Amino acid sequence: MTGAALQLARVRESAPLVQCITNYVAMNIAANVLHAAGASPAMVHAAEESGEFATMADALTVNIGTLSPAWLNGMKCAIGGATKAGRPWVLDPVAHFATPFRRQAVAELLALKPTIVRGNASEILALADGQGAGRGVDSGDPVERAEDAARRLATRWAMVVAVTGAVDFVTDGVRAARVIGGSALMPQVTALGCSLTCLAGAFVGASPVDPFDATVAALACFAAAGQVAGKISHGPGSFAVNFLDALHTLDEEALQTHAGIVAA
Amino acid sequence: MTGAALQLARVRESAPLVQCITNYVAMNIAANVLHAAGASPAMVHAAEESGEFATMADALTVNIGTLSPAWLNGMKCAIGGATKAGRPWVLDPVAHFATPFRRQAVAELLALKPTIVRGNASEILALADGQGAGRGVDSGDPVERAEDAARRLATRWAMVVAVTGAVDFVTDGVRAARVIGGSALMPQVTALGCSLTCLAGAFVGASPVDPFDATVAALACFAAAGQVAGKISHGPGSFAVNFLDALHTLDEEALQTHAGIVAA
Amino acid sequence: MTGAALQLARVRESAPLVQCITNYVAMNIAANVLHAAGASPAMVHAAEESGEFATMADALTVNIGTLSPAWLNGMKCAIGGATKAGRPWVLDPVAHFATPFRRQAVAELLALKPTIVRGNASEILALADGQGAGRGVDSGDPVERAEDAARRLATRWAMVVAVTGAVDFVTDGVRAARVIGGSALMPQVTALGCSLTCLAGAFVGASPVDPFDATVAALACFAAAGQVAGKISHGPGSFAVNFLDALHTLDEEALQTHAGIVAA
Repeated sequence: MTGAALQLARVRESAPLVQCITNYVAMNIAANVLHAAGASPAMVHAAEESGEFATMADALTVNIGTLSPAWLNGMKCAIGGATKAGRPWVLDPVAHFATPFRRQAVAELLALKPTIVRGNASEILALADGQGAGRGVDSGDPVERAEDAARRLATRWAMVVAVTGAVDFVTDGVRAARVIGGSALMPQVTALGCSLTCLAGAFVGASPVDPFDATVAALACFAAAGQVAGKISHGPGSFAVNFLDALHTLDEEALQTHAGIVAA
Repeated sequence: MTGAALQLARVRESAPLVQCITNYVAMNIAANVLHAAGASPAMVHAAEESGEFATMADALTVNIGTLSPAWLNGMKCAIGGATKAGRPWVLDPVAHFATPFRRQAVAELLALKPTIVRGNASEILALADGQGAGRGVDSGDPVERAEDAARRLATRWAMVVAVTGAVDFVTDGVRAARVIGGSALMPQVTALGCSLTCLAGAFVGASPVDPFDATVAALACFAAAGQVAGKISHGPGSFAVNFLDALHTLDEEALQTHAGIVAA
Repeated sequence: MTGAALQLARVRESAPLVQCITNYVAMNIAANVLHAAGASPAMVHAAEESGEFATMADALTVNIGTLSPAWLNGMKCAIGGATKAGRPWVLDPVAHFATPFRRQAVAELLALKPTIVRGNASEILALADGQGAGRGVDSGDPVERAEDAARRLATRWAMVVAVTGAVDFVTDGVRAARVIGGSALMPQVTALGCSLTCLAGAFVGASPVDPFDATVAALACFAAAGQVAGKISHGPGSFAVNFLDALHTLDEEALQTHAGIVAA
């Protein structure tokens, strides 16, 4: 089995418990994506329990899409638990450039040292340099423009950075890869990017030894399922349905046929 | 191109950024409806940022479906931002007659002068006269019964009022239109009405000059996509999927064939 | 008409208004499940109105999946209203064993005397004895292992207990039944169990005289729709769609063919 297929097999065998603190829009689709990949999602956000739960989960994912002060507090408690227990965690800095509240929150979360950051090009550009053409939650920049920013961020914070879009880019500052596949319908389905962040949590939860490989594998599975679904869908409604089916039934052959991983 | 088709083309060309403060049930489907129409949704509700974000968005929509005091505060801040920046905003007074908490909230929101109000017949009747046969979030009254109430409300508050149901009714107090189309399955899919409120935000965000025309166009697109989807669906599950596909692929011909707009 | 078909007919005729305080993941699918069965869902959680709303609803359902202190307070207010008005209510103790915050919350809610408790085997085992193999929200135990625990719980608290899984088990401490049907894809769709809790609320809201029969009927409809959907689905995405369609179109023949109810 190739790298990504092996990682997917590990997720299915070990069914990692992934604590997801994500936004209200993403919760349902993200949980369904994790189930389709074989992981066990748990949405637990309140500060009264998020830290304790994180010590029991295999990985944690944090997404600021619909942020509020109480949720930010719950995120920090969860990160504290994950860190104490040596568990990996993934940050999704949704539209963090849009307001001072979001910028400050992401600065605080970044200082807590995520294992992986996943964002669109506008988010990664703004995270590295305070620049980019983003307005809302959809990217205003192509992935290529954010590759240098991703490399610098990864080196500065000793983490894996994934920039997702038409062709994804992943780097840990030393290694880098591009992941090819997917479908033009993917950005038309809300919260698929947020769901990919959670999926990265599942992969790094199942194989925490190499967050770079885990991230690449998660992105490759997403890209392959997206390409399979794109071929048989008539719009974003049927795409979302077919995508979950394709991820659920994804095998090594489909992974190799419908996703490409190239060193960068 | 006819009026509604022209308005849809504007949404697709300009991809208006629509800030939606909506209920937990509606968030995902509403965001998907906006994407399917070509708009860019952003769910931003916290008082710490909602007002600032609203100054950057093209339109704001506010829905009280799952109201709480903190969210009501976030809504008011967002409306303040939209008003300051001259942006249109849309109010969806979900089941506002059900409790004093909701009635008071909607009275306060209405005083902030929405550009458009969209509700079902029971909600519009109760908003105008404190009457109607509504109990929960589903309408207990036919649209026709609420037409006079809608005209009075529109005149009193200088806004556009849309009453949606089997045949929709829209008025700004002077002009009025009925929009025909849709499917009997639409009320069986939760939060489609809430999603239509967000879509009205997208249309008035793309063409703020005439909120009446923008509202009629949003309703016509919804009605046409609903009729297309209704013809090929076996129940509310497949309807929701086909509806998003139909809205995504809606063209002028389908719009003219599957939706009717008549002056009233 | 048999018992379950008769109960379903009552739901469709009376369209019970069901107040659901459920988790963020479940809200949309649960509301769609209630619509597909013919009920009228209303998600109302804030303490400012939840108690008053509960006096008007036909039933209340409470689910702790994404619990926080404010929501727990809203749940207690709602239960107070339902109790005052003599309305039945259903408790779903999602992963209550996971943290002290959850354990304490469920102990407090249980003391308010739910009409029905629905959970997976790990949840019911932990509720009765503090044991079980659960980690997150997915069950780590088979239903059979929790049957004795369910009988003891039902007797101790004078309520109906439903343990759902591959074969469901329902008891009120005196009577007991197993419900057969469903599909292996059901646990792959997030929040279907939470939606079943809400459906039990619809059935007991339509026929409050016998909560045991109402629960069995709700489970039988779920099992039948699940089996119908499972036969034509390619994965969890298409299953969720087909399940809503199947529940919407379920008739007495399909109910008898695709679900079995046996005394236990």
